[in-house]
Amino acid sequence: MPLAEIVGSLAAFLTTASFLPQAIKVLRTRETGAISLVMYSMFTAGVTFWGIYGVMTMQWSIIIANAVTVVLASIILSMKVREVMTSRTSRSGN
Amino acid sequence: MPLAEIVGSLAAFLTTASFLPQAIKVLRTRETGAISLVMYSMFTAGVTFWGIYGVMTMQWSIIIANAVTVVLASIILSMKVREVMTSRTSRSGN
Repeated sequence: MPLAEIVGSLAAFLTTASFLPQAIKVLRTRETGAISLVMYSMFTAGVTFWGIYGVMTMQWSIIIANAVTVVLASIILSMKVREVMTSRTSRSGN
Repeated sequence: MPLAEIVGSLAAFLTTASFLPQAIKVLRTRETGAISLVMYSMFTAGVTFWGIYGVMTMQWSIIIANAVTVVLASIILSMKVREVMTSRTSRSGN
């Protein structure tokens, strides 16, 4: 494998796998206060477009990496949305 | 511009720009409790490797997008490290 391919594979592994500890953290603690709703909305949309780009250009590595990231980013986003909805409900309740 | 290139550019813009609202949020609130240190350590390393991959394969779009992301991810990571260091100091102080 050429050196550039090794560096690229390492880069893809690290950026994709990095969302796993964050997803585990929000699932475990249910704490999303410091997490940006705008970031995860944009990021989840962006990764979905990367997946579509992979399908359109028939690049399996792009499809797989982004499918994994979409799942992890969606977990974080949905926990954040849940927190935002809950805080709105409790605010309107008071 | 072919449709796949438009989708790819939109994907690159969204995933890169998404870190801006998160960086602004942590700089403004100084709150990083819910942010995963492991995630941003892996992610910043991964994006650095993407930049190196871009240099090795001479792809300017990869170099530029990842240079921007490295800066934004480093801001978030350094604010998180600061919080971890501060909480360690105050714990040992008590």
